[in-house]
Amino acid sequence: MKKIKVCVVVASRANYGRVKFLLKALQEHTEIELQILVGASLLLERFGKAINVMKQDGFEPNKAIYYTVEGETLITQAKSTGMGVIELATAFGELAPDYVVTIADRYETMATAISATYMNIPLIHLQGGEVSGNIDDRVRHAITKLADFHFVATEKSRERVIKMGEKESSVFNLGCPAMDVIANCDKSISNEHMKKYGGVGSEVDWNKPYILMIQHPVTTSYGEGFTQVENTLNALYRIEHIQKVVLWPNADAGGEDVAKGIRTFREHHMSDNFHFYKNFSAEDFIRVLNNATCAVGNSSSFLREGEFLGVPAVVVGDRQNLRECGSNVIFTGYDEEAIFNGLNKQIEHGKYPQGRVFGNGDAGKRIAEIIPSLKPNLLKPLTY
Amino acid sequence: MKKIKVCVVVASRANYGRVKFLLKALQEHTEIELQILVGASLLLERFGKAINVMKQDGFEPNKAIYYTVEGETLITQAKSTGMGVIELATAFGELAPDYVVTIADRYETMATAISATYMNIPLIHLQGGEVSGNIDDRVRHAITKLADFHFVATEKSRERVIKMGEKESSVFNLGCPAMDVIANCDKSISNEHMKKYGGVGSEVDWNKPYILMIQHPVTTSYGEGFTQVENTLNALYRIEHIQKVVLWPNADAGGEDVAKGIRTFREHHMSDNFHFYKNFSAEDFIRVLNNATCAVGNSSSFLREGEFLGVPAVVVGDRQNLRECGSNVIFTGYDEEAIFNGLNKQIEHGKYPQGRVFGNGDAGKRIAEIIPSLKPNLLKPLTY
Amino acid sequence: MKKIKVCVVVASRANYGRVKFLLKALQEHTEIELQILVGASLLLERFGKAINVMKQDGFEPNKAIYYTVEGETLITQAKSTGMGVIELATAFGELAPDYVVTIADRYETMATAISATYMNIPLIHLQGGEVSGNIDDRVRHAITKLADFHFVATEKSRERVIKMGEKESSVFNLGCPAMDVIANCDKSISNEHMKKYGGVGSEVDWNKPYILMIQHPVTTSYGEGFTQVENTLNALYRIEHIQKVVLWPNADAGGEDVAKGIRTFREHHMSDNFHFYKNFSAEDFIRVLNNATCAVGNSSSFLREGEFLGVPAVVVGDRQNLRECGSNVIFTGYDEEAIFNGLNKQIEHGKYPQGRVFGNGDAGKRIAEIIPSLKPNLLKPLTY
Amino acid sequence: MKKIKVCVVVASRANYGRVKFLLKALQEHTEIELQILVGASLLLERFGKAINVMKQDGFEPNKAIYYTVEGETLITQAKSTGMGVIELATAFGELAPDYVVTIADRYETMATAISATYMNIPLIHLQGGEVSGNIDDRVRHAITKLADFHFVATEKSRERVIKMGEKESSVFNLGCPAMDVIANCDKSISNEHMKKYGGVGSEVDWNKPYILMIQHPVTTSYGEGFTQVENTLNALYRIEHIQKVVLWPNADAGGEDVAKGIRTFREHHMSDNFHFYKNFSAEDFIRVLNNATCAVGNSSSFLREGEFLGVPAVVVGDRQNLRECGSNVIFTGYDEEAIFNGLNKQIEHGKYPQGRVFGNGDAGKRIAEIIPSLKPNLLKPLTY
Repeated sequence: MKKIKVCVVVASRANYGRVKFLLKALQEHTEIELQILVGASLLLERFGKAINVMKQDGFEPNKAIYYTVEGETLITQAKSTGMGVIELATAFGELAPDYVVTIADRYETMATAISATYMNIPLIHLQGGEVSGNIDDRVRHAITKLADFHFVATEKSRERVIKMGEKESSVFNLGCPAMDVIANCDKSISNEHMKKYGGVGSEVDWNKPYILMIQHPVTTSYGEGFTQVENTLNALYRIEHIQKVVLWPNADAGGEDVAKGIRTFREHHMSDNFHFYKNFSAEDFIRVLNNATCAVGNSSSFLREGEFLGVPAVVVGDRQNLRECGSNVIFTGYDEEAIFNGLNKQIEHGKYPQGRVFGNGDAGKRIAEIIPSLKPNLLKPLTY
Repeated sequence: MKKIKVCVVVASRANYGRVKFLLKALQEHTEIELQILVGASLLLERFGKAINVMKQDGFEPNKAIYYTVEGETLITQAKSTGMGVIELATAFGELAPDYVVTIADRYETMATAISATYMNIPLIHLQGGEVSGNIDDRVRHAITKLADFHFVATEKSRERVIKMGEKESSVFNLGCPAMDVIANCDKSISNEHMKKYGGVGSEVDWNKPYILMIQHPVTTSYGEGFTQVENTLNALYRIEHIQKVVLWPNADAGGEDVAKGIRTFREHHMSDNFHFYKNFSAEDFIRVLNNATCAVGNSSSFLREGEFLGVPAVVVGDRQNLRECGSNVIFTGYDEEAIFNGLNKQIEHGKYPQGRVFGNGDAGKRIAEIIPSLKPNLLKPLTY
Repeated sequence: MKKIKVCVVVASRANYGRVKFLLKALQEHTEIELQILVGASLLLERFGKAINVMKQDGFEPNKAIYYTVEGETLITQAKSTGMGVIELATAFGELAPDYVVTIADRYETMATAISATYMNIPLIHLQGGEVSGNIDDRVRHAITKLADFHFVATEKSRERVIKMGEKESSVFNLGCPAMDVIANCDKSISNEHMKKYGGVGSEVDWNKPYILMIQHPVTTSYGEGFTQVENTLNALYRIEHIQKVVLWPNADAGGEDVAKGIRTFREHHMSDNFHFYKNFSAEDFIRVLNNATCAVGNSSSFLREGEFLGVPAVVVGDRQNLRECGSNVIFTGYDEEAIFNGLNKQIEHGKYPQGRVFGNGDAGKRIAEIIPSLKPNLLKPLTY
Repeated sequence: MKKIKVCVVVASRANYGRVKFLLKALQEHTEIELQILVGASLLLERFGKAINVMKQDGFEPNKAIYYTVEGETLITQAKSTGMGVIELATAFGELAPDYVVTIADRYETMATAISATYMNIPLIHLQGGEVSGNIDDRVRHAITKLADFHFVATEKSRERVIKMGEKESSVFNLGCPAMDVIANCDKSISNEHMKKYGGVGSEVDWNKPYILMIQHPVTTSYGEGFTQVENTLNALYRIEHIQKVVLWPNADAGGEDVAKGIRTFREHHMSDNFHFYKNFSAEDFIRVLNNATCAVGNSSSFLREGEFLGVPAVVVGDRQNLRECGSNVIFTGYDEEAIFNGLNKQIEHGKYPQGRVFGNGDAGKRIAEIIPSLKPNLLKPLTY
């Protein structure tokens, strides 16, 4: 029997964190031939070169393509998308997959969706239907309209995708495959285990309390990233007796700005209980998140993985303000005082019970099981 | 007062036909500075170089960009999109418009939409919400999800766009701007007027009955274009005493196939009352359509302009089978016999009364009047 | 033993004609693994899709890449080069050849050379050192400066390449591999054999005298192609009692202009002993050239293959006026009268003796034999 | 009188340093209209965003184009070139210059040269004919073969360019325009003046002795950058009582590697009399170089500006080993010991007398004066 060729495009470390267990399930499925295409920031030193982690995990990509146009301005994000479309078209032409899988809502996701659409290859979209209240929304929903099948992460997402005109039978809520990583991993942390990461700043004692900070650029407030991250860092600085673990921002427009804010702060506060990291493996990130006293910033992981794990979080600004979330989150503006107060409240509260908004942690396997039974229809009629 | 810069991207002769009166209205509006960006097949000899017609009409483009990757296969359609995104990003960066206007549902439209989206420029989409039952649908709806404002052409389209989650206040049904051309032009035809077109084949007497044929490639049945066009031509061949006017297909994937079918037929039937044309000006196309005894093929103009004018039409295949239409249309499959019968029925029926499904013929002016009052919101929340 | 991977980039039908026997020799060499990368106009319907001929000859490409930006203006030639560089870089990255082979002097050649250079892959250039007196010269010589090894076609070319500063030991004059095709093929012609080609116009009797015309655009006189080709056609029209076989021009800037000149002429003179062809297989082209009473136009094949075969030729304009040539050629300007006189003179003279300016017809084999012994040096010092 | 449009493409901070005075002279020339096109690393934060310096100096670019594909591997250097060719073609099409000026030998230079060549715009090349003994050589010489006019920096370069077949009358040795900056600027240094640069590490007292280090990646020893830079840093570390000023490497393939070497060293030796800078303005770089006790690394500035100024230099590795140089230079390998000894020898020797290998410091003005009298010939025949 001819296997079904499923090509997953993994284009950032966040992407990989989300689909690791789906990749595993596809790899092990007897009716499926997994094709892996890696590209964009996953290959770049500056973003932690997560391709290396992926290879260590046993995933050998069929193709690795560079298509990030440097600049981190709005214009280069557009150009990276265009470059991605061009090169992915060539790659899809060679790999000739039966399905292309694309993840979430970033420009690499869009490039994948456009390229698959014009190549007439049925498109599977993960994590459609969500609402984050930022500019990613329109990209995410546009991809929904290009996609043939939707594996959404929550019930509300399923409803939204169907309302947008997608056939009910093409939308599956099996939970978020990112939760699989959490459900399946050792979530304990130790200094021994973490010492490999090096990082910049004073040494972290992972057995003692620490706050995890991740703050990405917000594309709608392009140009303000420097100040925004400064406020969060200043608030953190005032939480004296707890260690602070700061992770590097992603490659969106404005990323360089946020990075600069961090670097500037770092020059003066290197030895003030702050520690700066480029990247953790998907598993180690979960350890770090799970054991954090509190998380602060605007990473969607606080509302997803954090919800699943019950980690107290202070979510800053509007990057996540419409996302579905559980009880573990307090929202604040970019104001230093508000962030500082939120931090204190969450530290006091301590760990929350585990949530199930994003499924049970077995999405990857369940998605892989359904794929062979899908029946694509290139015409893809609207339901109204 | 600073003028509002509105950049209209015109990337094919069909595009131009649709927005000519909108361009005029924008050009004349005192609060608006019109920017025109032309590209793709509008610049190409092989597709009639409609840019020349446009310049004669008094529209001097701010920029003209080549971004068609040759091949007319699926892969080159994807690559042209990518190339378009890259170059349009640079162009938008230089022109810095307040709004970008994109038209309908083709790959150039998508390239424009993607590029404007990533550049954070509010996007105005013309002719969203329609349903054509082919692969263009998903592209059109995806553009709807990227666009900030929607000037739709029919009431049903308005309803669909709103159902997809767009705010009611961002959707305007002012009719189809392509109808403006019809409402405003001299629709009579004469040999004197038409002789400039040359064309290949026996001479047409425009005062006598003729059938107009336009058959584009259908992307979902890629590879069958040759046979499909052959059937239509053979059916036409059997309608003996009426002249046949055949127009060249567009640049979609499979276009070369259809063109080949026409060329092959032409070699044998050059002198059998057939005449082949590359292109007419937007106005002259209306003359030709208006005075046709019957139209045959799969051009959407038969259901739109044809409806407005009441021209009997036989629409072949599934390229248009979900589009809104008036009473002037008979649908058939690709079968020669069915096409032949349809033609006979319509010839017998003769002209239909004028329709108003696509508005009153003043859309361009009304759209231009509304633009200065628009209030863009980059976050563009879903309504559910 | 690990085989040496040699990647030949074939990007036009002319390219293929030149390296067919080299490909064969590389394919058969026990120490070499042949990689074939096809692209650009070789894949395009409009230029005869020579990839099909190639496959019939037993060459299965490792990769086929579309990178022609349509327009045939100066700007699209530049863009096609850029697009080629981008996609070839990805392809070379995947194929990881030990050598890249590039042919002659066109934009696809340049794209290949640039891409291989930046990928640090030793570059073998065929047919360097020639002088054609047109804009191709600077591209050809620039490629010489990028290339590591030079397989030139004539003694004068060898001298020029060395003068340009290339090490003598890196320059080999083994003759032109295009001659291999001629030396090894059945050069007879028959109606039976040729009828497969169809073509447009009156039927050719290949047993009777015919004149072969090939006229390409000249990039330095961009915009004059229409008139230039018209003059040649008019001169041919005056040679009454001999058949005329006209081949389609190549894809250089201005090609559409020349094609238009031919199409316009064709409309009026279809039945005047003219016959128009898109393409012949490499072998059949040799048959056609070998048996021509005379050749006219500006194809370099008249000075190369024609010299080898002793075919009388009238070479029009300056496209070839500095190329090395044998005694079989008369040069004229674009003037109709001069072309007409030249044609008469050559028809009267009849066949010339075979020449050896371009080697003995065994270049492909000899090149393949030398490749395993090459010693690349990435620094590639100048000799002065 | 119509002015001659001269378009200078400035694509890196090194580029700008070289042509600042040429830009000024072109700007002031009454017969010339200066067009400035900036792109690539000149626009990037990571490379000091030298565009800002340029604007402060009064140069407002006509166009700014992003075309750096991120990755700093061989493949992305190729892709950046391709992307550059594509976008520059569009830009040249819009600007329609009479001449394009390109500088030196990097991938941006090549992109400019290719694009101008295919657009039939006469190309002026600065700094051709030089020999650096690395992979840049072949690119530089290839550009020579594409260029119409050559403004070389030394007598030996002039001879080489002519030997490569360029017409003597098209080659001008007016000295290196980079020397103009030196000749014309205040070369004194003070803490007051330099404090704006910030930088990372211990504070520099610019009135006291310091060693300047600049070490770029070497493309032929790709992958060894980390170790190479480590050796230089270790040697410097042993020179105890003199301050060390370290500048960031350029964006060539391998740049990330070298940067990593510096960052790693920096983490341990931040407070050991080392100071790290991203970028100086062209003028301030001259101050820093002029007042350095000694320079070490592989920057070509040591052999050029350094020669002009008489600054003692230790040049490490083979990146510059074939360049023309004066008496101010000692060459060493990558060996720590050798570098250490070289440093000691040069420190002991002290300042050298000023050299004139690279002209008198008035090249920019003299080049601008000659441009109006140039007579381009698109055919550009070889001299042999």
